Amino acid sequence: MSKNTSGITVKKSEDFSEWYTQAIIKSELADYTDVSGCIVFRPASYQIWEKITKIVDEKFKKEGIQNCYFPLLIPEKLLSKEKEHVEGFSPEVAWVTEAGDSQLAERLAVRPTSETIMYPSFSKWIKSWKDLPLRLNQWNNVVRWEFKHPIPFLRTREFLWNEGHTVFATKEEAEAERDTIIGIYEDVVENYMALKGLIGKKSEKEKFAGAVYTVSMEYLLPNGKAIQGPDFHHDGQNFSKAFEINFLDKDEKKQYAYQNTFAITTRMLGVMLAIHGDDKGLVIPPKLAENKVVIIPILFDDSKEKIIKVANEIKKELKKFNPKLDDRDDYSPGWKYHEWELKGIPIRLELGPKDLEKNQVVLVRRDNSEKKEIKIKDISKEVESTLEKIQENLFIKSEKHLKSSLVEAKNWNDFKTALSNKKIVLAPFCNKKDCEEYIKDKTKGGKSLNIPFSQQKIKEPCIHCKKEATVMCYFGKSY
Amino acid sequence: MSKNTSGITVKKSEDFSEWYTQAIIKSELADYTDVSGCIVFRPASYQIWEKITKIVDEKFKKEGIQNCYFPLLIPEKLLSKEKEHVEGFSPEVAWVTEAGDSQLAERLAVRPTSETIMYPSFSKWIKSWKDLPLRLNQWNNVVRWEFKHPIPFLRTREFLWNEGHTVFATKEEAEAERDTIIGIYEDVVENYMALKGLIGKKSEKEKFAGAVYTVSMEYLLPNGKAIQGPDFHHDGQNFSKAFEINFLDKDEKKQYAYQNTFAITTRMLGVMLAIHGDDKGLVIPPKLAENKVVIIPILFDDSKEKIIKVANEIKKELKKFNPKLDDRDDYSPGWKYHEWELKGIPIRLELGPKDLEKNQVVLVRRDNSEKKEIKIKDISKEVESTLEKIQENLFIKSEKHLKSSLVEAKNWNDFKTALSNKKIVLAPFCNKKDCEEYIKDKTKGGKSLNIPFSQQKIKEPCIHCKKEATVMCYFGKSY
Repeated sequence: MSKNTSGITVKKSEDFSEWYTQAIIKSELADYTDVSGCIVFRPASYQIWEKITKIVDEKFKKEGIQNCYFPLLIPEKLLSKEKEHVEGFSPEVAWVTEAGDSQLAERLAVRPTSETIMYPSFSKWIKSWKDLPLRLNQWNNVVRWEFKHPIPFLRTREFLWNEGHTVFATKEEAEAERDTIIGIYEDVVENYMALKGLIGKKSEKEKFAGAVYTVSMEYLLPNGKAIQGPDFHHDGQNFSKAFEINFLDKDEKKQYAYQNTFAITTRMLGVMLAIHGDDKGLVIPPKLAENKVVIIPILFDDSKEKIIKVANEIKKELKKFNPKLDDRDDYSPGWKYHEWELKGIPIRLELGPKDLEKNQVVLVRRDNSEKKEIKIKDISKEVESTLEKIQENLFIKSEKHLKSSLVEAKNWNDFKTALSNKKIVLAPFCNKKDCEEYIKDKTKGGKSLNIPFSQQKIKEPCIHCKKEATVMCYFGKSY
Repeated sequence: MSKNTSGITVKKSEDFSEWYTQAIIKSELADYTDVSGCIVFRPASYQIWEKITKIVDEKFKKEGIQNCYFPLLIPEKLLSKEKEHVEGFSPEVAWVTEAGDSQLAERLAVRPTSETIMYPSFSKWIKSWKDLPLRLNQWNNVVRWEFKHPIPFLRTREFLWNEGHTVFATKEEAEAERDTIIGIYEDVVENYMALKGLIGKKSEKEKFAGAVYTVSMEYLLPNGKAIQGPDFHHDGQNFSKAFEINFLDKDEKKQYAYQNTFAITTRMLGVMLAIHGDDKGLVIPPKLAENKVVIIPILFDDSKEKIIKVANEIKKELKKFNPKLDDRDDYSPGWKYHEWELKGIPIRLELGPKDLEKNQVVLVRRDNSEKKEIKIKDISKEVESTLEKIQENLFIKSEKHLKSSLVEAKNWNDFKTALSNKKIVLAPFCNKKDCEEYIKDKTKGGKSLNIPFSQQKIKEPCIHCKKEATVMCYFGKSY
């Protein structure tokens, strides 16, 4: 393999889509399959997803949320029980209609989400206030047969996620869960994935099919397009009424329960990789990197043995960072630098004969290419503090990238201009579905992202319809 | 709820099927759904599955096997590539034929197993001997639309499993993996699930569709029926030739690779629960029990406060066993005993006013109902050693149950009698497919289980056809 075929052939700033695809595929994180829109999560990406799930799962469990598993296939009559829900999902449902040689009596949906298969069980299990709260979660796969152009991780017809489904006796208890869950997602996204996002409520048009309201976390891709991350839906009694999830309260009165759902998906892998990567390839945040360090010995015939020996000692010393030692004979150091840069390992340690003489290695940061000579005796401490700096730097860069693109619009012209300049625009908004439809049409795809919780005073009317604005809302072009 | 409705209403020895269903459902481990043959894994069973996957997964990773994720849906043309494989699976495939309002151009199989979606990628990735071995694994869900009567865990149309798929340059390397993998499964089944099984090669008729040979672990249910547990398949070059998984060896010659696959499934939850349970309900092996201890304070008005206080201190002391403290006011101690016996918690600690006077608790073992008064100061040590004894006892009982049913048959009459007496029969066998078909017919379902690795000298001809026997093979009635 020569550098030309293994490296990325376009600049991220010039052709983001092509850069992204090459970065993901050439680094061996994902691959296409014969099923359009469905990808392979190769070990290098699945490892990251496993880390994310572990972090989130532990926090869910601490909260008292328990894991379970419901069937993949949902009978059509169940999927249709909540009107808005079925309207939202049915255009994207993959249907099983045959088994073996037989035609099925009823079509079975491959779950696009599991409300309609879980809630008949909830209805059966919940009889009394003593059975509440019920807080369940699944880590599974779902299928949404979108007809838009698929992109690895960012838009795939099958993806992996958690789906939390919780049931409470009162609205207050249900809503009190919101900040906890958003806090868990915010922690993993900010402190592990090193990404800054916008948190707020979705507009009436963009909320989840069946929810009373949706809280979302929105991210800005390098091409100026916004993309939705984890979300939390408060469903009120919409599903509990459709599925008869009711209970006798302490006064023996029948009450309908209040419900929430929430999710983080493998799409976030794509968001993370897209935002942190550069022209050389991926940059994996240290806390999620399987191998946090790669050691590259620079081999010459006369010093080879000694260099390899010291490289192995360093590997042992750095064990807790799970270092890779690339001692392959048939590749040049330069080739190896490129390969591991492509794959995004946070720190490279170079060790040549001259370094050895000085009892040092050259440490190279993946995020900013900074080089530093460090004494071998200090190596563990230096690696540790550098990893922290990289993690921090990635988050700060992500925050800057987001904040530098936020603008506020007071009139329609500014609004349109900002959107076409790929900005995220905060604007006064009536939060009516029709008005948002018009905005989308007239701006060629401008969409509300979310409505920040801390609202400033609204001084102007709705940016589009000029009627009363009820919220200040973020808009952007979305992926 | 009265005892009559919540407890199990039949004896395990009198009606195993009904006992099993009641034990699984009433203990809240599983529930039926509106999709026939697909169950809910409620938290109490999913927790056990999570523990099993964690134990196995850690061992796979230590071995260098990496996790990944391939698509759920497999195009029909790929499923058909290996002839025996498609013949084996197609009668049970659930087919997606529609998406949204569209008819798909090609049917997509919901994976019954993933060889045919994974191996086109393997073919693409593997070019040189340097790319080998490739050792991948997935933890996922599969669907096999069996038309036999479904039973929770033991036979479900969707189940969870691991599927290991490994590729090696040589037959020797591939086969060397066998003992490692079987060893990992044996460890989790014997030392955690506390089950003894029979390990050996499947017959020619019963091996995996597409394999050169299959190694299986077989278990004996309380009703005398045998059931297959984890398995390992050596596929030789069958799939590598069908899917063009080849590579240039060190001499630049094209070679086809050698492959293995292996799996453990959620069926094992059913096997474990069926074997260890008794008339009172489930018995969960201590190493897999989420809560290893339940503390039941016996409450009277005058001592209630003090008892609850001490019970809480004990709970704290026993923290590492994740104890439950059942201090509910509205249930009698007797009711609580029954409930936690039904759910299979290994140790019950009873604490009443008289115990408190003597600074003791009454410890009750779930596996044999043994009661013992222990001093509160010794509680942690006593619980620990009792849990070990329970774990050991369950395994010994399971081993006795298996061994007491093994017989050897020298002639056809003995063979038939033993099978109809629900024994597992070791018999000389020609290992021909037709002969096994006849055996199955003539014994109303007698089936080969497996062929033990350590073979005694074969002195007789085949138990059925009287031609030369090539192996001593276990036969049984199977689930």
